[in-house]
Amino acid sequence: MTTTGPKLTAGPDEFALLDEIWRAVTPDAARRMLIAAVHAFAGKGYHATTTRDIASLAGMSPAAVYIHYRSKEELLFNISLVGHQTSLTLLSSIQGGDAVERLKNAVAAFAGWHAEYHTTARVVQYELGALSREHHAEVAELRRQIEQQMRAYISDGVAEGVFDVPDLKGATLAVLSLCIDVARWYQPSGKRTPDEIGALYADLVLRMVRPTS
Amino acid sequence: MTTTGPKLTAGPDEFALLDEIWRAVTPDAARRMLIAAVHAFAGKGYHATTTRDIASLAGMSPAAVYIHYRSKEELLFNISLVGHQTSLTLLSSIQGGDAVERLKNAVAAFAGWHAEYHTTARVVQYELGALSREHHAEVAELRRQIEQQMRAYISDGVAEGVFDVPDLKGATLAVLSLCIDVARWYQPSGKRTPDEIGALYADLVLRMVRPTS
Repeated sequence: MTTTGPKLTAGPDEFALLDEIWRAVTPDAARRMLIAAVHAFAGKGYHATTTRDIASLAGMSPAAVYIHYRSKEELLFNISLVGHQTSLTLLSSIQGGDAVERLKNAVAAFAGWHAEYHTTARVVQYELGALSREHHAEVAELRRQIEQQMRAYISDGVAEGVFDVPDLKGATLAVLSLCIDVARWYQPSGKRTPDEIGALYADLVLRMVRPTS
Repeated sequence: MTTTGPKLTAGPDEFALLDEIWRAVTPDAARRMLIAAVHAFAGKGYHATTTRDIASLAGMSPAAVYIHYRSKEELLFNISLVGHQTSLTLLSSIQGGDAVERLKNAVAAFAGWHAEYHTTARVVQYELGALSREHHAEVAELRRQIEQQMRAYISDGVAEGVFDVPDLKGATLAVLSLCIDVARWYQPSGKRTPDEIGALYADLVLRMVRPTS
């Protein structure tokens, strides 16, 4: 019986992209280990991955991991932190004339991010339960900020009278969920680019919040 | 350092619900093993779960597993098959007067299913890569049928002139993705019931496909 997993789920292109997210992580060895951990966790899950697997993917000795990270959980926490921080920074950076333009750009950026960084996003989203209680609380605070930011883009349009949203909390949840799930189904070999997915989703979300006649 | 995982992710209520999905699986021992496997895979991932873990959760000897299933992968395949078949059957069963009513009921049912059976749905969606090539192909065929069914509900409304959908394939993908991702964030202790989530999502999806003025 042949099996398609476990395996590394990203090609060299995403390796380069990942590098971009982690540019701020120093020294080089710590960055290399985080990137290796993302791929190991994505390939066979957090619980089945050993620090030895990660060290081997990073081309280092198992002992070298512990110079930079106290544990496997510490690696996951750092991945989760950087993943949430970069997507929150992107989401918060949207400027624009009116509420329609801002929500459109916010959804396009957030959905596109989850396509481009789908490997990281999968690890971040599906392994939340493996974080320690303290680390989970830190990440939950970032998730609240992401939720607040998206909700603000929607409620701005309600205040301006250009959106009609009977259930603001529910709509915000649905919009975030729609964008995040791109990470599950996106394949670099698929027909749509991250930008095309972003444009499609921006259109669909604007339809969701537009006043009904 | 305390950690919140691995653990069983469902309470007794979902155990009863799971039983309902698997009513057709006989004998009892085979059904008990499938349910135990769902919880083990959901708790720490497919690759970190051993057949011994599954047997122990089911209250049976490790050797007993092999009477009913050739391998751990065979258990995952059966879970995936039943999960896809029951959601496809539900989706295909929608009857109704007009296209608006049918899409509304289809989305409510499909989103609600992913809330009720979130533990099973997570295993089914996140562990696809662990299926053998042959099993993956069988499951992919069911996924195509689910996609075709949802697309038919949308295109019916386009044909009747009540929906306006510039990108039918893209909208279908987004609607399915929105419903499936309910399994990721749904918590039985949360504020919305599966039925309420279904109703919210039905409304949001109808807004997505409604003609724009």
